[in-house]
Amino acid sequence: MAGSSADRAYPEPVRRLIGELERLPGIGKRSAERMAFHVLKGQADEARQLAQAVIDVKEKVRYCGICYNLTDVDPCPICSDERRNAAQILIVEQPRDLISLEQTGLFKGVYHVLLGRLDPLHGVEPDDLTIADLLERIDDASKNCRTVPVREVILGLNPDLEGDSTGLFLMEAMRSRSITVTRLARGIPAGSSLEFASRAVLADAIEGRQEMAD
Amino acid sequence: MAGSSADRAYPEPVRRLIGELERLPGIGKRSAERMAFHVLKGQADEARQLAQAVIDVKEKVRYCGICYNLTDVDPCPICSDERRNAAQILIVEQPRDLISLEQTGLFKGVYHVLLGRLDPLHGVEPDDLTIADLLERIDDASKNCRTVPVREVILGLNPDLEGDSTGLFLMEAMRSRSITVTRLARGIPAGSSLEFASRAVLADAIEGRQEMAD
Repeated sequence: MAGSSADRAYPEPVRRLIGELERLPGIGKRSAERMAFHVLKGQADEARQLAQAVIDVKEKVRYCGICYNLTDVDPCPICSDERRNAAQILIVEQPRDLISLEQTGLFKGVYHVLLGRLDPLHGVEPDDLTIADLLERIDDASKNCRTVPVREVILGLNPDLEGDSTGLFLMEAMRSRSITVTRLARGIPAGSSLEFASRAVLADAIEGRQEMAD
Repeated sequence: MAGSSADRAYPEPVRRLIGELERLPGIGKRSAERMAFHVLKGQADEARQLAQAVIDVKEKVRYCGICYNLTDVDPCPICSDERRNAAQILIVEQPRDLISLEQTGLFKGVYHVLLGRLDPLHGVEPDDLTIADLLERIDDASKNCRTVPVREVILGLNPDLEGDSTGLFLMEAMRSRSITVTRLARGIPAGSSLEFASRAVLADAIEGRQEMAD
């Protein structure tokens, strides 16, 4: 109601930009307005660069043909990097998960992005993910990065119901294949306090307790 | 540090889009990443529409030649609207203030946007604002909306030091001109409580107390 009279007060191109910005995640009407006014007040060059960046990201970025990481070259820089151990595949749900893990700088293997997780209730079946491509990489080394045979698969799925059932499905698929399957450790997150840890977190921490080194 | 290894993990176009989005007000790295991934996952059409909206807003939107409202037609729809009382000009600092006032749907006059406020400490002098154009509208009816002579000027400046001194400057300029000068009422904001009102708000409320109608 109040919105409609405000909308009429904006010139049409401003209204349209606000509308487009509001479709972005986490952007409400207020933020969209602030952003639109920023573009309006800024240099025309800045606006063109932003517009071009939006277009380029759609036109130039695609999935890696091996691991389904987002990339502008195929195969992606991780798959073609000779310093990385292609025998070790860390399986994640989304490219964002891969980025988070890369930020640590600790993992020296390669990845496989499922582009989702099994969720039969919402119609997500194995065929909707990149599981077939993963099995191909394992079964046929020529399909893996730099034709290296796979020896270990690490499950890096989200620690929730769907992540766990996706993990179970993958473990089942690996059973007939002679490779090691591991999963990322679960427990109390570093920097948190026991007091506020949930029952599930504490259960993982107790069950997965690690022997102290001398 | 963590940022640099993360940055290398993104394809260049993604990195560039995140960078462009981060320049927008109130958008941090995290939001920029979420927005970039949304664009990546979405339809190419949606991305093109967003990009086009950014470009159009710069190319099609300009200031109204009379009141300096943002508009894609000149004069703006408010200045050319025959149902509005062009004898009454409400002076605001920014187009956003105009939008807020229009949202109420209560004001039936026209506007003049100063595009700022006097701030000598930061080098903002009268010539940096649209004050000369305002005085022209007042002195020469042919320069005002629909050539209507101006009878009243309402100060709608922000209630702070710079807003007040801008208001004083304008009142001084109006002194030699035979028009009424008023300003928006100040007092306790509706919906708030006295308990938390600041001394300045209470002072305004006491000084500007209004006689109760019977």
